[in-house]
Amino acid sequence: MANTELHKAGYILTMGEILVEIMATERGQSFRQPGTLIGPYASGAPAIFIDQVAKVGSRCAMIGCVGDDDFGALNVERLRADGVNVSGISVIKTATTGSAFVTYRENGDRDFIYNIANSASGHLSVGNIRDDLLKQCNHFHVMGSSLFSFRIIEAMKKVIETVKGHGGTVSFDPNIRKEMLRIPEMREALDFILDYTDVFLPSGHEVMLLASASSEQGAIDELLKRGVREVVVKRGKDGCGYYDGTTALNFPAVSVTEVDPTGAGDCFGATYIACRAQGFGLEKALSYACAAGARAVTFRGPMEGTATLAELDAFIANPSEQSHG
Amino acid sequence: MANTELHKAGYILTMGEILVEIMATERGQSFRQPGTLIGPYASGAPAIFIDQVAKVGSRCAMIGCVGDDDFGALNVERLRADGVNVSGISVIKTATTGSAFVTYRENGDRDFIYNIANSASGHLSVGNIRDDLLKQCNHFHVMGSSLFSFRIIEAMKKVIETVKGHGGTVSFDPNIRKEMLRIPEMREALDFILDYTDVFLPSGHEVMLLASASSEQGAIDELLKRGVREVVVKRGKDGCGYYDGTTALNFPAVSVTEVDPTGAGDCFGATYIACRAQGFGLEKALSYACAAGARAVTFRGPMEGTATLAELDAFIANPSEQSHG
Repeated sequence: MANTELHKAGYILTMGEILVEIMATERGQSFRQPGTLIGPYASGAPAIFIDQVAKVGSRCAMIGCVGDDDFGALNVERLRADGVNVSGISVIKTATTGSAFVTYRENGDRDFIYNIANSASGHLSVGNIRDDLLKQCNHFHVMGSSLFSFRIIEAMKKVIETVKGHGGTVSFDPNIRKEMLRIPEMREALDFILDYTDVFLPSGHEVMLLASASSEQGAIDELLKRGVREVVVKRGKDGCGYYDGTTALNFPAVSVTEVDPTGAGDCFGATYIACRAQGFGLEKALSYACAAGARAVTFRGPMEGTATLAELDAFIANPSEQSHG
Repeated sequence: MANTELHKAGYILTMGEILVEIMATERGQSFRQPGTLIGPYASGAPAIFIDQVAKVGSRCAMIGCVGDDDFGALNVERLRADGVNVSGISVIKTATTGSAFVTYRENGDRDFIYNIANSASGHLSVGNIRDDLLKQCNHFHVMGSSLFSFRIIEAMKKVIETVKGHGGTVSFDPNIRKEMLRIPEMREALDFILDYTDVFLPSGHEVMLLASASSEQGAIDELLKRGVREVVVKRGKDGCGYYDGTTALNFPAVSVTEVDPTGAGDCFGATYIACRAQGFGLEKALSYACAAGARAVTFRGPMEGTATLAELDAFIANPSEQSHG
């Protein structure tokens, strides 16, 4: 109980890209010709994460940058309304809020056109770190998608070292998009972060990316040996796996009709981290996390499927009632 | 006749931003919440201009930058298909093709969210100037909207000096958006360009922006005295005015139902410049220019209303048959 109160007293903090997402409305729709789109939706993996943390009821804050435009206002107002401390979000006058255009192929794969590195989010640097937020932070979450510039990597390292230095914990969702792997020294930065990671939240195909082992179990063992305390593998429609060296758990997914998968992994991770920080037991936290991921895919728009615990309870009781296409 | 052939032998060249435009579908639609959008449309004032020049049948080329993405491909393929020499368009691997989101207020005013200065178009510099295109160029057109960085202004100056140096002519459409006036030294750059301008193509409200006179006629006289040879004032639904110090002409607009005004001024200017370069008489060129501007507003999408001379002839014969919303 004392432990729970201690956790509740501190912020869960994240830092990174804040975007709008514009979605093609038809499967197979090309961005080489005009078509019907829908948007702008609030987006950005860390923004989705922290919105879900707030909905679960944890104190939380985000550090990031938006442009001086309606796309920025849309995101900031959304996060604020959902309970996120947005005092660490800066408005960059000389840049536009980041954007992602997404279109779905017939087979369900997604194609993106990003404007992130040269957007307001690309201005994020050590200068944006707010000492007052860091002091109150006892958990910091890193999205691999945010590591797209050296100055952001530098800022991440500083936050990680500070939070760990005063006894906080770090979670890390590699969330690696193929575009990110083009950036030199990316692997080095990922390795640095992993050295400080308490909770590692890879998707299934990412488990082996940062280990030398040739099997998933081997990679998990390697990660745990290197100092990660919990590996929680997100397997989409196949649920999730939990590994801490002592306990291994597999949770099935809640079966739903997928409307839009974007943001599901972020909602899963946020719910797990927030529930654990609130002192929930492992199985309850994983159960809520699976529900949050499943419910998110029934909503069109990356941040539209974030949910309170009450909404997750209702969803768990009756998953098939969801349909928000 | 010799003069006409000489003109036909050379390129009409422009340089500047290449964008996609994404349009809100409802009047008064906000970009602070999701809604239905339509796009991407090929756009960028100089790109629209040069597409229309090509459609009129003049040899032409464009210098500009796009990202390595479908938005860039959409523009390059469109310009190429319409007859523009696109060899001067560079693909910038580290940037996204520029974009403009536009929404129409109830009163018809437009609000934009631009990503231009930090897009691929912001990479345009002296290094993109192609000597082979300059050698063949006997007319260069400058859009004021393109002058959003010092390196672009430097490149514009170089092209202007080179083209004028070998006996070519320059046209200038100030096309000033309020966002552009924030940039220091903008007025100085505009003054520089005006010193070299043969054909000045302001919209009505822009005539007095670059003169000290307090009346439109006073401003026109001042511009002609300073060396501009022709001032062609675009007055939208009130037609156009032509002034060269000897001749003053007023042309009425073709009456149409406006679907989307974006690009109309660019089509007007392009048609006037191309027709004159092909040796058309003043009145015929102005008549086609007015038709091109009027026809353009009947199409949704900034570059969708570009037209061949045959299409303009058909439009002049029966303007009311157009409706392309």
